[in-house]
Order: sequence, then structure tokens, then C-alpha cells
Amino acid sequence: MLSAADNKKLTRTGPDTPMGRTFRKYWMPALLSRELPHPDCPPVRLKLLGEEFVAFRDTLGKVGIVEPRCPHRGANLFFGRNEACGLRCIYHGWKFDRQGNCVDIPNATPEVASRLMPRASIQALTVEERGDVVWAFFGESAPPLPDFEYLGMPSEQRFVSKKFQQCNWAQAVEGGLDTSHFSYLHAGVYDGEKASLLDGGKRPTLRAANESPNHSRFRWLIEDGAPRFTVLEHDAGLLLCAARSADDDQTYWRMTQYLVPNHSLTPGNFPEDTSLMNTWVPYDDESCWIFCYAWHPDREISDDERTRYREGRGLFAEVDDDFVPVRRRENDYLIDRDMQRGTNYTGIANISEQDQAVADSQGTIADRTQETLLQTDLGITRFRATILNACQSVEEGVQPKGASDTSAFRVRSGDYVSEPHQSLVEVVHARFGEFAGKNIVFP
Amino acid sequence: MLSAADNKKLTRTGPDTPMGRTFRKYWMPALLSRELPHPDCPPVRLKLLGEEFVAFRDTLGKVGIVEPRCPHRGANLFFGRNEACGLRCIYHGWKFDRQGNCVDIPNATPEVASRLMPRASIQALTVEERGDVVWAFFGESAPPLPDFEYLGMPSEQRFVSKKFQQCNWAQAVEGGLDTSHFSYLHAGVYDGEKASLLDGGKRPTLRAANESPNHSRFRWLIEDGAPRFTVLEHDAGLLLCAARSADDDQTYWRMTQYLVPNHSLTPGNFPEDTSLMNTWVPYDDESCWIFCYAWHPDREISDDERTRYREGRGLFAEVDDDFVPVRRRENDYLIDRDMQRGTNYTGIANISEQDQAVADSQGTIADRTQETLLQTDLGITRFRATILNACQSVEEGVQPKGASDTSAFRVRSGDYVSEPHQSLVEVVHARFGEFAGKNIVFP
Amino acid sequence: MLSAADNKKLTRTGPDTPMGRTFRKYWMPALLSRELPHPDCPPVRLKLLGEEFVAFRDTLGKVGIVEPRCPHRGANLFFGRNEACGLRCIYHGWKFDRQGNCVDIPNATPEVASRLMPRASIQALTVEERGDVVWAFFGESAPPLPDFEYLGMPSEQRFVSKKFQQCNWAQAVEGGLDTSHFSYLHAGVYDGEKASLLDGGKRPTLRAANESPNHSRFRWLIEDGAPRFTVLEHDAGLLLCAARSADDDQTYWRMTQYLVPNHSLTPGNFPEDTSLMNTWVPYDDESCWIFCYAWHPDREISDDERTRYREGRGLFAEVDDDFVPVRRRENDYLIDRDMQRGTNYTGIANISEQDQAVADSQGTIADRTQETLLQTDLGITRFRATILNACQSVEEGVQPKGASDTSAFRVRSGDYVSEPHQSLVEVVHARFGEFAGKNIVFP
Repeated sequence: MLSAADNKKLTRTGPDTPMGRTFRKYWMPALLSRELPHPDCPPVRLKLLGEEFVAFRDTLGKVGIVEPRCPHRGANLFFGRNEACGLRCIYHGWKFDRQGNCVDIPNATPEVASRLMPRASIQALTVEERGDVVWAFFGESAPPLPDFEYLGMPSEQRFVSKKFQQCNWAQAVEGGLDTSHFSYLHAGVYDGEKASLLDGGKRPTLRAANESPNHSRFRWLIEDGAPRFTVLEHDAGLLLCAARSADDDQTYWRMTQYLVPNHSLTPGNFPEDTSLMNTWVPYDDESCWIFCYAWHPDREISDDERTRYREGRGLFAEVDDDFVPVRRRENDYLIDRDMQRGTNYTGIANISEQDQAVADSQGTIADRTQETLLQTDLGITRFRATILNACQSVEEGVQPKGASDTSAFRVRSGDYVSEPHQSLVEVVHARFGEFAGKNIVFP
Repeated sequence: MLSAADNKKLTRTGPDTPMGRTFRKYWMPALLSRELPHPDCPPVRLKLLGEEFVAFRDTLGKVGIVEPRCPHRGANLFFGRNEACGLRCIYHGWKFDRQGNCVDIPNATPEVASRLMPRASIQALTVEERGDVVWAFFGESAPPLPDFEYLGMPSEQRFVSKKFQQCNWAQAVEGGLDTSHFSYLHAGVYDGEKASLLDGGKRPTLRAANESPNHSRFRWLIEDGAPRFTVLEHDAGLLLCAARSADDDQTYWRMTQYLVPNHSLTPGNFPEDTSLMNTWVPYDDESCWIFCYAWHPDREISDDERTRYREGRGLFAEVDDDFVPVRRRENDYLIDRDMQRGTNYTGIANISEQDQAVADSQGTIADRTQETLLQTDLGITRFRATILNACQSVEEGVQPKGASDTSAFRVRSGDYVSEPHQSLVEVVHARFGEFAGKNIVFP
Repeated sequence: MLSAADNKKLTRTGPDTPMGRTFRKYWMPALLSRELPHPDCPPVRLKLLGEEFVAFRDTLGKVGIVEPRCPHRGANLFFGRNEACGLRCIYHGWKFDRQGNCVDIPNATPEVASRLMPRASIQALTVEERGDVVWAFFGESAPPLPDFEYLGMPSEQRFVSKKFQQCNWAQAVEGGLDTSHFSYLHAGVYDGEKASLLDGGKRPTLRAANESPNHSRFRWLIEDGAPRFTVLEHDAGLLLCAARSADDDQTYWRMTQYLVPNHSLTPGNFPEDTSLMNTWVPYDDESCWIFCYAWHPDREISDDERTRYREGRGLFAEVDDDFVPVRRRENDYLIDRDMQRGTNYTGIANISEQDQAVADSQGTIADRTQETLLQTDLGITRFRATILNACQSVEEGVQPKGASDTSAFRVRSGDYVSEPHQSLVEVVHARFGEFAGKNIVFP
């Protein structure tokens, strides 16, 4: 539960807000590289943290992200002509390069133009393109990009996309960090449980939603719906460790990474599986882009896997040409009440869309002043404390957690089945080795 | 004409408003029974007096109307699974019964869950299902349902539906209480009157819109466009008596019932005819649901009549699957100007849609500070005074008119043709007997 | 650049604003005559300067523009029946003539009606229909209509239409007065210029967009992108003279008329060509109607020309049945980036739609507090000063510039090619003679 003031601080990221100033200390994924497919291709409208921009790939293939307003008479540069290493305003031909420099004022005399140009530059973000993503930094002196493992992969070993989420960034992050809901939101239900419906408040017999080689873990998710959480802090964020009873006195661990300010590496994978990461980027305070990255450190992502990701699987939603999910707020996620009765718990297809639905359902901006938090919500409360602390640092003029430490972001998430004698320290070391988190602190 | 303050008081029914507190002292129709067709069917979103709810029919067939917000993390229970006598949140499986009790918290230990559940109940309205309608009461100790005659009918003798109105509840009620507009809004026009159009301000020769066995009354409506009103008060509201000249020195009476706070029984029927009643329920302050009831105390409503009602006739509009009229604000009620010229006065098909159009046309919330009220508007002014008085009672902590007197609502409305020697007392007694209104007061 | 206060003053035209009071001192085109095609045709909804009206053509063919609210109970007269020289409210039959007089109150006794009618009139604008347009004046004592040349033409020699613009009136006017953008916004580009795209900030080789008998002038527009402006004041507004280098030491002049408060006569025509004029009428502060007039003083407008105007050419946009452009804000004006690369500078078809796009792109209401104005923007700054001065006059209770001087509006615009020895005085006299502008002042 947060005070109304803290809830506001957490959720508002416009330029004149504390969290907005905090986000602007970190690199943000701005768009997918493939949205600007070739040099001099059409410019693209962007909204990032509530601010409008226009992105373009110039003649040399470099991407610029600039404010959209021509300083001459305020025409919008989205309509500009992308030509000869710059964007030219259609109204009177003023031209700007990808760094925002004004490089031509053709409707003035050469003398006047020379005098004016240095004063007529426009705001441009610092841009770096890596891992199929155009990354942007709002401030002056950008630190190196975080050393996410996925960024080091060759393109054959990764798959990257994005999807639009119709609610505030923070509640979507909270859904991403919350592994406890796997026992419900993503569960299947037996057709057979209808028979026991009259049995008072009895829970339906949930079943594992997926058939898979690792089928047992889905059963463990269903059988233990109140996992025990331990949260470990490290230099780039938090490792959230959730323990569930497995078979034969073993423990099934699902371990999630939260990386400041808006990244998560999901659990659900054993070492042989593909890894998954998300970044939630505020579009404005009432919606966000979710960037989704899949990679495998040891092998290529197959064509079959790419096809399945495109059709909506795991973190990836089925999206339209604008990366807006086909199942969304306006159509109640195409909820199918028969499916909810007999097949899965929500009646909504795909894990991504189930996450989306429940996050949206908390409101456009969730009210955190009325909540009943449990031990299973420990990851949520620690996320809030961590990012509000970073925000406090920025307000005090101090560099916030992780903002300039690229190596701290080289972490992994994932699952583990431990023996009764193994401590959490042993579990984390056995599963992640050097990828647990820089300077991770055990209780 | 009302002051701006009284107009605001009349029209706002949210939880923190005087009229909102007043409405919450009375039973409200919340939805049609058939919107929740069978046990454990899909839940339905509701908005009542500006507040959001979710309605569901549980495994035993009982209806619950509860606030939609799960107290755990604020997910919306509309997406919940309707199972085993309760609605289960899709996020983490918290479950609530139809009285709003929390009956399961599966993501906590049993001990924690037992301790939390009593404090985790949600708001639930008192619900009673009768006469094909789910009735709701907002407060704690609900009085008995009003004894509307239609509620006592077997289902073969009644037909019930609803329609959405895109304006404030009060101006829609005022349309329902205003029988004087029948001489204009619902009139037909002769094709032949085109010939006299150049004749200055002369009125067109109106004709009766309907052909019927009682055709004379339609002629009287047209011939006497300024009826004389007498308003009689009784324990549940008002009997509005409008007198028009008929043939041979007879008087044609149309007598409407207004029942607090938002019901009306319409005139237009003789004893052998079907009776009609409306309830206007604020959805929010800019729209309302109009519940429509037809019944006959002595015979079944035929299949033909049901078909006609469904197609839009009398009080019943032609509606889509969401009960929104096909002819509505966005499409100017499919007004046909040729029809307006040669067939009926508005160019809009169906009486219900004509009422709708003119009420909407007064604005989303009508401004009553600029009006020119006539003697024919007496019913309107008495309606306003009556409900504002009830509102005043509530503000003073007194039970408002009719709120706990179920028998006072057992009234009838209808038409009568009186002889010159008959007084109004005789007319009312002759037409209604014991159904005129409890403790009705004659001037 | 304007202060925020002046920008607000310039752009707001509602009834309680300084500019709104100023506009209401002048005649406004309200709708096209053909929108009310015959006596007693369907009424039409209007919004003018942020105020709502209903327009109707009465039985005698005269047009009325009246407030839409019936003074009885506030029903909207748009739904009224247009009959026998008046509009009759559908609710209770009150009737109003085109001057707003209440001419019938049928739901009162004759005595009451007689007493009420004189007090029940509604607001009506002063209306004059001329030149295929219904002109309206808001105030009491209307001056004569301005003596626009087009108004004196027989209907065969003119073509009139309108189009909807989705931004504030003033920035649309500024686009209309700005002939300097012709060197960019309306330019074509050679396919061949792709070859030179890597050449830094070099301008693309623009080409003339149109092939025409006067082809040279299009080349001059491209070759001289920084015309020299001289602005001359006269009794109805401004003559904006823009000089560009032509061939053989000649000068190519494009001369635009601005007429208070919201008219423009465009350049681009030599004496043998068709003349063009625009009026920008605020619908509200975020959109406007642009009335477009073409005429030829000496010959008929041919069927071919009319067809081309209807399809979108010059000032005329391709519009739908509601006069809303097919290419508009919501669809990014159907911008075609391949066309922008290889055919024309914007990738948007038609000059009118190019103007529209760039004006809309300045925002719903352009922010003029951040601009970098050049000598080529002199016309813009003088327009602002002129209309703000008129506004100042009104605030001081003085009749504003041109408001009552009908003959001052009899002006022409157009192009001229001058010899080196010709002064501006000689140019203006040679081109316009008595049509330069009443009491025009040379520097």
C-alpha cells in the first residue's frame, strides 16, 4: 500500500515529475530497429515519457530522435522530407540533422541563415542502436548502455518485439515481477471440476495450462499457490526468489530479476531454455510500450520459435501492424466465458494477454492506497521501495542506483529445483554463478 | 424554472450528492433477469447512479451485485470466474460470494487467510429478483419492494424490457410525465396540409398518428392542444390529470402516475387495454436506463404483442443487443424529413424514439434556469417539487416520501371520458377505484 | 512571435472574447446557399464562432439563422418542422419565423399565447444571401456587405465551395497569406535528385510542380526561395508584395490581399487568369470553415474547370458530402512517402491539402510564443498587428478597420513581371489600377 503522494510519484513520468527526472537518467528503448527499415525511410512518430518526438534513419543509416517542432513557425517535422542526412520541414525547407543541428535555412539570405542556424537547433536524444532496438538517452552525457546479456547475442540467437499496454507502466511492471499469480492467472482448469461447483467456497481443481517436457513444474505451480518469497538486492536491482513445494521434499524456485528502472528478466526457464526479458517504457502516464526480448546464449532461435512468438506466446502478444495487441481493453481481450469455464482460468488466450488484461483491469493508473498486500507480494513492495529510493536520490542530486554501472545489468533469471539441504545462497550460486547480480546481498 | 442550484440538485445522483443519497433510499431496477440467464453464467458490468458494479448469478441461481474491485491488488472482478457460489478474481484467486463476503484467499497461508477474510469483504447491494427484473437497494436495511401491480402478474401477463437514454434522468422523466406533448410530438400530419403552407403562422392540420378502435381519442389529442391540468398528491407520488375537450360536451381525461423517485405509469389506456410503466435509472448524470413494463391484469400478453414491443412500439424502442436504441443521438434518430413533411410531426419513427429525441435535444443535462412554463407544464413543476422535497427530507434525516410504504405503489393510470356533470373526484373514483393512490388528496 | 496573451487574444473568437467581439463587427459567410436547396427544406445545424445555430430556408425562400433552443422547455429546433414561414418545435409546437419572432404558442390559451409571444422570441442573425453564400451578421445594425469583386459576378462566372480545416482560424490564414512557402510546400522534386542525397545539407533540386503555359513562374518560385516582402496598408487590409528574381533582370511579383478580419485574395494569377479568394470562419477555436471563391471578371467558369475544382485543385480540396476533406488530420492527409521522395515535396496530393496539413501540424491552436520569424514572414507579422489593432479598436469602443466601408473590399490580387526600372508604386498601379486598395499607402 502506498500513500496517494507516493502512488503519484511512482506513476508519473512526464518531464517535470520526480520519476520523470529519474527515468531520464537511464537508457530507454525507443523503437525497434525494423520500424526504420532503411536509410532515408519514412520518419516515425514517437511518444516517450509523455514527450513527442520524430525518429528518422538518415542517409548514412544513423537514427535521429528529435523534437517534432520546427523552430521557424512550429510545423511538425513528422511530415518532413528525410533527405541527404537530415529532415527537411515541408513548410519552408528548414533542415535538421540527426543531432538536431539546423543545417539549412533556405528562405533567408545566406548571411541571415548563417547567423541563425547555430541558434536554431532542436532537441535531439542521444541514440544508440543495438540488439534490434534503438535506445535513447534524454540527458547530456550518456553512460554506456547496460550490458544486458541479450545485447551480446548475435541476431540469430535473439528475437525482439514490442507490444502496447493500455495502463500505467508501474502496474504492468508489478505484474511482470509477480510470479505468484502463475498459480491462478495463467492456470488451466479441468472440465471435470464442474462437478464440484456446489461445494461451497472450495477451489476448482486447477490443472497445468501447458503440456511440456518439464510438465512437473506446472503441477507444482498449481499445487502450491502461496510461494515463499525472499528478495535479494544487487547493484542493478533485485533478485526475487519464490519457493514452492516440489516432489520428494524438493523445492521449486522461480527467480525473477528486476533491473532499474523498468526491466525484468522472467522466471520459468531452466538453463537449457530460452531466456526472456521485458522493458516497460511509458508512452504517457496511461499507457506504455513493453519491449520483449527472447534469446538463447548457446543456440539460434529457430524459425518455428520465431513464428510462435509472432503469433503470441509467452511474453509475446499477438499484435497488429502497429504493435497493438489484437486482444485488448476495448474488446475485453476477446474473453471467452466457455473457455474460462472449461479450459483456462481467465478465458483469455495467451499468457501475455492474460497479464495485459489484469494489469489494465486495475485501472488506467492503479490506486495503491487501498490494497491488502500479502507475503507473496513482497516482490511488489520491494520494487516500489527500490524505484522510489532511486527517485529520492535524483531529487537529492545523487546518481541513482545502477544508472552508470553497465556491468551490473549482466544478470540472469530462471528456475531451479533444490534439495532439502541447499540454502538459498547455494541455490543462487548453483543456478546463476556470476550472473546472479553484482554485489548481491544475502540475508 | 429552477435556480441553477436546484437544477444541479435535481440532476446529480452520484454517491456524494443530495439526490444521490435520496435515490439510495429506494429500490432501483438494476438489470433484466434475462441478462443473467442461468446459474454461473458470465458476469455483467453495471453502472448505477454513477457507481460501477459487477453482477453475477451464482451456482444456486441467486444474483449478486458487488463492487468490481478486488481488495487484494485492485483487479477487476468483471473478469472473474463465476464458480461454486462465488466470483473468483483471476489475478490471485481471491473469491467473493454474492453478499460480498471474501470466502477464499488461496495465495496466503491458511492462518493468514482466516485472519484476513473477515476484513476483506466488498460492497454488495441488497438484491431481490422479481417481475423479470433484478432490483437493488444500496442501503443496509431494505424495506419491502414497492407493490407495483406489474410485479404481481404471472409472467404470461407481462412484458419487460429496457432501453438506453442518452441524457440526464430527470428530463427523460419530465417527458414521460408530460401528456400535453402528445398533441404535437407524437402527432401525424396530413399530406394535404402542404397546400396551406404559405398561410403565415397557421398551424398545419394535424391528424391522429394511429388508426385504432379508439380512434376518437387521437382526434381529441390533436384538436385540443392545451389540456387543463389538475395534480393530485398521494402517498407514493402524484396523479396528473389532463382534461381535453371531447365530443358532445364530454371531457377526455388522460391521467398519469408519478411514483417517487423515478417511476411513471402512462396514460393512453382504457380499462380493457394493456398498462404501461417506466422506471428511469441514472447510469450516470448524462445517461439513464429506462425500464419498460407492459402488463394486463386480466389476460396474457400475446406473442403478436411481444413481437411488436420488441420491434419498437409505445414505450418500447427498437434496441440492439446491448439495449441501445437503433435510432439515437449519434444518428439523429434516423430523422426522415420527407416523413416529417408528409406523415408524422417529427420524421422520427416510433413514439419511444420521438420521446428520446426531444429529451436528448434539451442537452445532456437540461438547463432549467431558462424556461417559459405554462399551465400545461404543471405536472413538470409538481414532479420537481415532489422529488426536491423528498431530497430535503433525506438531508434532514427524515425518511422520504414513500420510501418504506410498499402498498402506496399499488396504483393505476389511464384514460376516461367523462360526462359534463362528473367532477374530478367522481372521474378518479370511477376510473381507478382503490388504485387511484393511497390517501389521495383532492383540491 | 507573440506573447502568450496576444496569442490567446488572436485565436479565441467565442462570444465573450475580444477577438470574438471583433469578428462580430463584420459579416461572416455562414453556409453555402446550396446547403439549403429549396424553400422549406430540412434545417441545417451550424456552428459559428463557437456558437450553435440552426439555419433554415422558409416557405418564401428566405434564410433564417436562429439560436437552436426553444424558450419553452429547451428542446432543439434543429429537429423542428420547417413549415409555413417558420420553424415549429417538435415538443409542443411553438413556432418561430426567420427573424426569431415567436409566432405561435399552441399549447396555451389564445390569451396567454398572445401575452407570451412578444417575450418569447429567439436570437436571429441578420442574414443576406449573395454570391452562392448565406452571409450572417451578429450585431444589430448591419453595414452593407463588403463589395467583394466575386459578389458582383453572374453565377456563370464564379464557383464557390467550402472545406473544413482542423485547426484554429488564424494559423490557417497565416498559411494563406504566406506566399514564400510556395518555394517548398508546393514544390515538386526531380526523381534524379536521389543521386545527390549524400551531399551533406545540400538542397534537393526542386522542380516546378505544375506544367503550364506560364511555366517560367514555377521555375522562379523554386529558384528564389527567399523573396523580398513589402507590405502596403489600405482601408480594408494589406497588400503583401513578394519579389523574386526572374529571368533577364526582371522581377517576379506575387501580390496577396489580406482583408479584415478573415479574407484573403491569393496570388498566382496573371490578368487573364481566374481569381481566387478565401474566407476563414471559426467553427470553434480548434477548427474553421474555409470558404473558397473562384471567379473570372470576363468569362464563364467552364464545366471542365468546375469539375477540376470539385476534384480538388488550387484552393479547392477534394471533400466529402459534409465538405470535410478526404485527406485530413486523422489519416495524415494520405501522405505517400514515395511520392514525397520522387514527385512532390510533401507526398500529399493537391495544394489545398498541403496547406491544410502544414497548418494543422502547427497544433490545434499554434503556439506563437516560440518562433523564429524572418523577413519572408513580414506578411504574417503585419496580419497579426492589423487584426490585433482592430481588436484594440473594438475594446476601445471604436468601429474597427473596414467594418463599415463596403467599397474598401473591392480589391484584386495577382502576379506581375516587372522591368528593372519599375518601382513598386508603378508595379502596383500597372497590375491593379483602381483595385489595389482604397487609400493604399506606399512607403
